[in-house]
Amino acid sequence: MPGREFFRTRTVAEALASLPGVTATSAERVGLDEALARIPKDDIVAQWPLPGFARSTVDGYAVQAVDTYGVSEGLPAYLDVIGAVTMGTAPDLVLRPGTAATMPTGGVMPDGADAVVMVEHTQQTIPGTVEVVRPVAPGDGLIKADEDVAVGQLLAPAGRPLRAPDLGMLAAAGVTSLAVHARPVVGICSTGDEVVPPETAELAVGQVRDATASALAGLVREAGGVPRSYGIVADDGMRLERVLRDAVSDCDLVVVSAGSSVGARDETAGAVERLGPPGIVCHGIAVRPGKPTLLAQCGEVPVVGLPGNPLSALVVFRLVGMPLVRRVGGCTRVPPEPRARARLTRQLASQAGRLDVIQVRLEREDGQLVASPLFGASALLSVLTAADGYTIVPEEATGLDAGVEVDVTLYR
Amino acid sequence: MPGREFFRTRTVAEALASLPGVTATSAERVGLDEALARIPKDDIVAQWPLPGFARSTVDGYAVQAVDTYGVSEGLPAYLDVIGAVTMGTAPDLVLRPGTAATMPTGGVMPDGADAVVMVEHTQQTIPGTVEVVRPVAPGDGLIKADEDVAVGQLLAPAGRPLRAPDLGMLAAAGVTSLAVHARPVVGICSTGDEVVPPETAELAVGQVRDATASALAGLVREAGGVPRSYGIVADDGMRLERVLRDAVSDCDLVVVSAGSSVGARDETAGAVERLGPPGIVCHGIAVRPGKPTLLAQCGEVPVVGLPGNPLSALVVFRLVGMPLVRRVGGCTRVPPEPRARARLTRQLASQAGRLDVIQVRLEREDGQLVASPLFGASALLSVLTAADGYTIVPEEATGLDAGVEVDVTLYR
Repeated sequence: MPGREFFRTRTVAEALASLPGVTATSAERVGLDEALARIPKDDIVAQWPLPGFARSTVDGYAVQAVDTYGVSEGLPAYLDVIGAVTMGTAPDLVLRPGTAATMPTGGVMPDGADAVVMVEHTQQTIPGTVEVVRPVAPGDGLIKADEDVAVGQLLAPAGRPLRAPDLGMLAAAGVTSLAVHARPVVGICSTGDEVVPPETAELAVGQVRDATASALAGLVREAGGVPRSYGIVADDGMRLERVLRDAVSDCDLVVVSAGSSVGARDETAGAVERLGPPGIVCHGIAVRPGKPTLLAQCGEVPVVGLPGNPLSALVVFRLVGMPLVRRVGGCTRVPPEPRARARLTRQLASQAGRLDVIQVRLEREDGQLVASPLFGASALLSVLTAADGYTIVPEEATGLDAGVEVDVTLYR
Repeated sequence: MPGREFFRTRTVAEALASLPGVTATSAERVGLDEALARIPKDDIVAQWPLPGFARSTVDGYAVQAVDTYGVSEGLPAYLDVIGAVTMGTAPDLVLRPGTAATMPTGGVMPDGADAVVMVEHTQQTIPGTVEVVRPVAPGDGLIKADEDVAVGQLLAPAGRPLRAPDLGMLAAAGVTSLAVHARPVVGICSTGDEVVPPETAELAVGQVRDATASALAGLVREAGGVPRSYGIVADDGMRLERVLRDAVSDCDLVVVSAGSSVGARDETAGAVERLGPPGIVCHGIAVRPGKPTLLAQCGEVPVVGLPGNPLSALVVFRLVGMPLVRRVGGCTRVPPEPRARARLTRQLASQAGRLDVIQVRLEREDGQLVASPLFGASALLSVLTAADGYTIVPEEATGLDAGVEVDVTLYR
């Protein structure tokens, strides 16, 4: 294992920090209907105020508030109704003392009016006259021309995936095309003499179908990237190096899942090292499962070497790979993940200095969530698909006691 | 308001239950690389066992466990190494008592072997002989041929959106094409004389750009649907009816956001009622904001009439519309949403029997999350984009005290 002894095992945070030269993808313009979850390259600010005009927020009557002071059910104000504001047009009315205009929700405040009385607080018993039975203050029943958004105000921040309400805000502000980071292209390559494509109908004894690549492609999409398949390479360092060189030149990030045997891992490590400079920056992460992970960089492109077992590979890719996909994709404000608090059914042992990732199944017992750890060889895919989520034993802990409450990150 | 008085306000659960005739979309076949978050029409079960052969889970030596019983550092077993198992092929070795074969992780167990000793527990000092210094039991260091998945075992359940690990499992099992529910097509139509398309560069006084349609399209996508725009219809009941008839005949679900004025709401209600049978099944939901919501059905197609204010419309669509999109899309097991527990900064008043949805901003104070309610007219989009999530005051409560812990559903 040439070179391996020069690297000490790193924590996840150290591993991520060991790739400082990573830059985000360049910008591309997209329309609003393609913008969900895309990441603005720059802060998007308002060019115009919103709503842009003083606007009624209730159905009722536009008035001069002073005309309503002191009124009550027993002592209403009687105002002359001089017209009606219609939706979507500027009213050609001017309110003078003692007058009112009928007003729909969303209508433009006529000149001279400074408040809207809700229809529920009026009666129209005499034609052409409205009785107002509750006083209003100036500003009641309306929003000002820049009350929603003032010119220059932030509509959507750089670096945060756009949410559905952001799209509404951008539409309201007339922003229908925007600069977002290009989705990072993530090259995925599998190695291993025993690994065959999922389409293989009949397996020879000893062959396994490539599970990791399909699962990784899913996680890449969840992190906002576009997976690109580089297929399966047998345990041949020179061939693997050629495939990885292609991937590095065409992708923003490259992931290679090593074969499961120690020989395959060494071939992968050698091929990745030769891709440099700078080459391998981290070899071995203090995570279980997933220790034999390597991080490298070829120019600006990060290369992640994952363990061969699918469970280990997916655990590490969640911890290290998805944050890198987000970083390369310009995402600086990571959306929240679903989590739950649950009571651990049994004790978990761990080593200090090592992060343990435990797959758990959640059940409700007496109204409380309980998390049952799922164990089994990390070669077992069924452990991962049976899990509702995972919990961790942090680096500083030497284990968790049965019965404690833990945070479970939920799969979705 | 013809007919309105015949409907009493419903709770969200009652409203959803009032559309019993809704059926899920039919099936379509997709490849694995398009299957993330898609919803299997039926349970997918294994046709073959996995891994399909007894497989080593460590690097080491295949042995007969009985040969290692009682061994120790001081008293090792000496076994003849009769060959090496190579990856991806069936070994042509047969282990007899007193022999061993070198074994890579993932290799096929040779005939006669029933355990694998980890390489760390061996020494090879004499060529052709391995010293075993720790005993193993039958089954150690390997997984059986059907230990991951037995024939007939569930690979992925019907009705639950496929997760990344599911894709790995399906790939391993050779399932590369699968029947999933077609994504439900959701027609979105906006009404209101004052509403103009987001592309409108210069607004006349009184006009507002359509914010709701773009935000709804985002929520439809989040719920697994495909939004289809039916544009903006002025407050003209007959035209609206024609547009809605088109939408109902081409979509799996139709959403119409009413204009904000009472006149526009009545035109919408009238047009939706005429679409029947069965027509409007629920008029008014006990939710704030969002009370003037209507649910209807035209044949099997649900029609949701939303309030005109974007904030109200989006609140209701999250509570009522997204569950309907999922139901129509065949999703019976809804993925978890991100949530947080936070301390409420101020008291919230509410009416018993009404669900209040409160937009909140989250901040960390002394290591604890606090939730500050955001208030403002429901015409303000900025309330929604400033919020990190929402909390609810449930139907049975008359308010929440300042300082209590609340559940916040986080936007992502």
